[in-house]
Parts: sequence; C-alpha cells; structure tokens
Amino acid sequence: MLELSFENHIMTQFDEELEEIRTRLMEMGGKVEQQLKNAILSIHNGDSKLAQDVIDQEKFIDQMEKDLDDSCILVIARRQPAASDLRLVMAVTKAVNDLERIGDEAKKIAIHSIILSGEDNKKSGYPEVRHIGASVSKMLSDALTAFARFDAEAAMKTFNQDVQIDLDYKTALRELMTYMMEDPKSITHVINILWAVRSLERIGDHTKNLCEQIVFVVQGKDIRHD
Amino acid sequence: MLELSFENHIMTQFDEELEEIRTRLMEMGGKVEQQLKNAILSIHNGDSKLAQDVIDQEKFIDQMEKDLDDSCILVIARRQPAASDLRLVMAVTKAVNDLERIGDEAKKIAIHSIILSGEDNKKSGYPEVRHIGASVSKMLSDALTAFARFDAEAAMKTFNQDVQIDLDYKTALRELMTYMMEDPKSITHVINILWAVRSLERIGDHTKNLCEQIVFVVQGKDIRHD
Repeated sequence: MLELSFENHIMTQFDEELEEIRTRLMEMGGKVEQQLKNAILSIHNGDSKLAQDVIDQEKFIDQMEKDLDDSCILVIARRQPAASDLRLVMAVTKAVNDLERIGDEAKKIAIHSIILSGEDNKKSGYPEVRHIGASVSKMLSDALTAFARFDAEAAMKTFNQDVQIDLDYKTALRELMTYMMEDPKSITHVINILWAVRSLERIGDHTKNLCEQIVFVVQGKDIRHD
Repeated sequence: MLELSFENHIMTQFDEELEEIRTRLMEMGGKVEQQLKNAILSIHNGDSKLAQDVIDQEKFIDQMEKDLDDSCILVIARRQPAASDLRLVMAVTKAVNDLERIGDEAKKIAIHSIILSGEDNKKSGYPEVRHIGASVSKMLSDALTAFARFDAEAAMKTFNQDVQIDLDYKTALRELMTYMMEDPKSITHVINILWAVRSLERIGDHTKNLCEQIVFVVQGKDIRHD
C-alpha cells in the first residue's frame, strides 16, 4: 500500500538518513501507543504500579522528541531536501510534537489513575473510560499504521474516527455530570474520571493532527482546519 | 535589547523574507493575545456577543498558521538557510502551532462564556478566572515581547511565570470543588468555569513552549523538558 516512494533519487546516505528518521518516528509512536494502553489499563485494574511506570517512562518519550527534532534540523541543514523529502522532514518535526503531547496526556491519565486507585472501590465512570479509551487507542494505532505505509486514504479514514470519539466524549460528560448531581459525595472521584476522559479526547485531537501530516507528506496538501 | 542579529549576511531578499516571517508571526501573536483578552472579558461582562466574535475570529488565526507555515517551507526550499536563520524558521513553524492552539483554547473559553452568560447571574468562580486570566495574559504578552526582541533572558523569566500560574490553577481547582460540594445545584455552572480555567492553564503551557523556542533561536539550546 505504499502510495509514495522516495525512489526518485538513488539510494544514498541521504535516503538512509530519511529512512532512519522514519523508523525512529515509528519507534516513538509504538512507545507512545504502549503508554496510552498502560495508562488506561492501570485505571481499570486499579494498578498504581503500572500507572507509576507510565509516569516514569515519559522522560524517554521527551528525549525521543528532542533527538528526532535534532536529526530533522541536521538533515535540512546538511542535505537541503526539496519537495516530498522536505515535506517528510517537516511533517516529522510536527508529528514528534503531537506524539510527545499524547505521551504527556497518557502521563496525566496515569496520575489520575494513581489517585483513583487510592479510593474505596468506586467504579462510576469506568465504562466511559474503557469505551473512549478503546476508540482512541484504535485511532492512534491506525494513524501510526497509515504513517508507516504513507497511506493518505487510510489517514483520512482514521481522521474521521474522531467524530464518533467527540460524540462519545460529550455523552460521557453528560453522564459524569449526572453522577455528580445524584451523589455529591462522588464529586472528587468523578472529577478524576472527567480529567482522564478529557485527556483521551485531547489524544484524539493530536491523532487527527498526525493524520493531517500524513496527507501533507503524501499529497502535499495542507488539510488543517478544512 | 536585541541579543541576536541577523546582520552577518548583507541585506538581501532572503533577509527581507525572514523579516517578513517574523513580522507576520508578531501579527499573529497580537491577534491571539486579543482573542484571549476578549474571551476572558466576555466571561466577566456576560457578553455573549463578544464571545461570539472570538469564535468567529478563530478562522483567521487558523489561516495565519497555514500561511506562515507555507512561507517557512518555501524559505527552506528556496534559500536553504543555515545556523541561526534555519533555527528561526524552524522555531516559527513550532511557534505558529502553539499560537494557533492558544487561539483554540481562547475559542473554548468563549464557548463556555456563552453558556455561562445564559445562566441566572451565578458568579462563583469568576474571581478565579479573572486572577488566572490576568496572569496568563501577562505571560503571553511578555513572551511575545521577548520574541520580538530575541531576548532569551526575558524568555526564561517569562517561562518561570508558569510556576505561579500552575499553583494558582491548583488552588482554583480546590475552590471550585468546594463550591460544587457545598452547592450541588451549582455543578453545571462550576464545570463551565472549570473548563475555562483549564484552558487558561493550557495557554500557560503553550506560552512556555513559545519561550523555549525563543531560547532555541537565540542560543541554539533546546531546553524543552529540562
């Protein structure tokens, strides 16, 4: 499904550098994906150890962002890429930023997870987290696959998954508000769920940005805010 | 207070292009700053018309982001900038993204402002919005001034303002939780304030990113996550 190939110049050190950047972006994506999954899982299992692990791992994602950004600037300075090569490098500098922010939101979920794990077995809001968490995880996974394959069509399909996530998010907000009004003693608990769900919604937005970058690399079209 | 000058190459069309990019970034910053101020003001004055104006203006900020990003890519492709010139262009592509997201958060505040304006004169949480809103507005204004002057020292000082904003944010959250627990009928109202305050806190984070980019342009140091 490779829609774009970088074969129009012969395989040189430059190609290897581009390929390496892409590989490292995929590694970073995989790591972020795992962080998100672990953060969601830690809420459901009341697993504060796993949540702490998510928090501890975040610094490696931060470092990946800095390193990849460095490499991109170096490639631009040394190789002066043009056309699709330049688009790829520019898209990677944006994508690493979104991936880092997804990692950041996963860390926030993990922080709320630790607070929730200290409570007396309150579970209201957990189905909402599971449901939206599963949708967002799938969306991120699909976006990374589309990036790996330079598949703009798959990126657009993935982009559109966010519509349903936003609807589910709004429904969840209404339900969480009802829980609080029916049982004001649950407010502290529900607010933690609320922040976790909000983080998931934000991750959906960052994943949309990733999809926009894929379309930009492959088709040269800037579809942001369209 | 110009700590960095781009005078080491004679004034050419290239310099003019860089200067134009910088000027347009400042224009975008000024626009975003106004949006933030109007969004906060609209809450205090219950001015849904002003809030609607903030919402309507957002599309112009989106367009500024796309146009500036285009210009940056064009400059890289045509001029192959190096060293501080390249850093400037790369920093601008990141800064426009943060400015656009600040504009996005201002729009979110405006949406909550419209909902709040339809309520029966409830004002709990308004002092918190005013207080944090004023700090965040000042921080953004200082960051833009530091960018205009390429003043890394001022950027670092501005960066550190976020510590107090985060403390005030946490205090505000506790107060808002107390309002809800004391008067469960106020939950819907307070949740709208909560989202507005959260948006302000996010704007503080994006402004920190702007400060990091200034240090990167001027000193070539990547201080993110330090």
